[in-house]
Amino acid sequence: MKVGIDILGGDFAPDANLSGAVLAKNELPSDTTLVLIGDKDQIFSGLSALGANPDDFEIVHAPDVITMHDHPTRAIPQKPNSSIAVGFDLLANKQIDVFASTGNTGAMLVGAIYKVNTIPGIIRPCITSVLPSIDGTQAILLDVGANADCKPDVLYQFAVVGSLYSKHVYGIENPRVALLSIGEEESKGNLLTVATHKLLAESDDLNFVGNIEGRDLFLGKADVVVCDGFTGNIVLKQAEGLYGLLRKRGVKDDEYFNRFNYENYGGTPVLGVKGNVIIGHGISNDIAVKNMIKHAYEVASSGLSAKINEAFN
Amino acid sequence: MKVGIDILGGDFAPDANLSGAVLAKNELPSDTTLVLIGDKDQIFSGLSALGANPDDFEIVHAPDVITMHDHPTRAIPQKPNSSIAVGFDLLANKQIDVFASTGNTGAMLVGAIYKVNTIPGIIRPCITSVLPSIDGTQAILLDVGANADCKPDVLYQFAVVGSLYSKHVYGIENPRVALLSIGEEESKGNLLTVATHKLLAESDDLNFVGNIEGRDLFLGKADVVVCDGFTGNIVLKQAEGLYGLLRKRGVKDDEYFNRFNYENYGGTPVLGVKGNVIIGHGISNDIAVKNMIKHAYEVASSGLSAKINEAFN
Repeated sequence: MKVGIDILGGDFAPDANLSGAVLAKNELPSDTTLVLIGDKDQIFSGLSALGANPDDFEIVHAPDVITMHDHPTRAIPQKPNSSIAVGFDLLANKQIDVFASTGNTGAMLVGAIYKVNTIPGIIRPCITSVLPSIDGTQAILLDVGANADCKPDVLYQFAVVGSLYSKHVYGIENPRVALLSIGEEESKGNLLTVATHKLLAESDDLNFVGNIEGRDLFLGKADVVVCDGFTGNIVLKQAEGLYGLLRKRGVKDDEYFNRFNYENYGGTPVLGVKGNVIIGHGISNDIAVKNMIKHAYEVASSGLSAKINEAFN
Repeated sequence: MKVGIDILGGDFAPDANLSGAVLAKNELPSDTTLVLIGDKDQIFSGLSALGANPDDFEIVHAPDVITMHDHPTRAIPQKPNSSIAVGFDLLANKQIDVFASTGNTGAMLVGAIYKVNTIPGIIRPCITSVLPSIDGTQAILLDVGANADCKPDVLYQFAVVGSLYSKHVYGIENPRVALLSIGEEESKGNLLTVATHKLLAESDDLNFVGNIEGRDLFLGKADVVVCDGFTGNIVLKQAEGLYGLLRKRGVKDDEYFNRFNYENYGGTPVLGVKGNVIIGHGISNDIAVKNMIKHAYEVASSGLSAKINEAFN
């Protein structure tokens, strides 16, 4: 198993990425190879500063950086020697099993869609987030920002790929799928959710449990929650914002509210592309990077991208 | 000043409404008349059980109840002797200055729009909620559910009526208006917000401060936050849900998080109709009803409905 890591992405590159990689290396099975993609000299000196042995890693030289200011669609062709472009080349050529980065999200999405390609039959790949439930479980929310405007058939596919993610990575046998809306009745919602409800309710392939409202997001009522990327992004950012205010107000609650800390998750996959791609938070510290790498390992081990491909082809 | 109160609305009618009215009566200026609308016998016996003097109130007999199960558009014509139908008759005939209810929200919206009528020029009336900011201020969020699907010109009007509400009721001289979206740049968002951003940015009548994201909702960056009613309802319910979980987890924070308790606000106006209409939460207890009545008094005193009418005509 080879896990490719963009060493130059994110706000605290390269230090947080290298430190996270060293931490992850110690927690992953010994047959896992971490492939560090970035400026070779920086990687060598960074690893030695951390007391790590460069021979424990594979290092691929990619001196250029795609920053948060680069244009997402133009960045990869303009910077073929960037760590993101090189990472996608490695993934497309199957030299790595998964590629993870905390870099420019837009460029990561573009790379996932245009360098490894969308799975035939998938209308729009999407990204996900985790909703911690009060009962100790967690739900997957999707889409959280790749697709601001969606049609009902796109939301239907989110339900399918979200169910596959829940099943193969989180081990939920028959994931309960809910549609995020503004009332539990099928007639409640906007034009999009009312039409999507009908599609989901008619499906034999999904375990659809109906609409849920914003107040039910954290109650463990579903394993997969489906919405358009605009709504999902606002839900995700609002939860992040309120968690930040809890921290600011000095509220500590390890048992529940600390599960809102993004560091625990690190990153989430792009669902619907021909390869395992993991996107992490730009503000990731070493713990978040470590958890992103571990999740990348889980996603690759589950063969998620191939499982989605099988389901659609 | 006459404040009409639906005594039969909400989950804890008539007790919570009567008790709330008695509490409010003690806190409002002595020239305020509270008009209690509901079953006369219930009101008399309820007031006497509370040790209150029925002569301190005006009582209007309306024996029928519109429940949460009644169809919103059919309920008022089907039940002309219901407290909601009678309340709107009194408001339309200017026998009261404001009508407040914790009853069926759909029926309240229908009554507001069809019995007191939409202000000419207003495309879609809307409802609001309060976002408590960490800096001690608060913002108004609108729409929070009256209009699930909106066009850019409708969102533009929300900005206008929200600014008038902020100015005349909350005393903010030049309210900062923000558009809720998924990125600060004008190009970020869905088709609706990108088009709305342009309208808001071009306006000379508004103090538009740009897009804000979900994580900024509670940071005091704006006085008025505009979104479609689907998004706003999910934001509102998510905040309510997380506040409920804080309570469940035993987190106490009077200074900030307790401001998420709906009881503090009680109710919010329907903006854009020819009369002052206040809708409260169905689960309102007596404190929430008291605060709804006090806010009804503030809204009526400010002449908000007339101010909006002047701005549009």
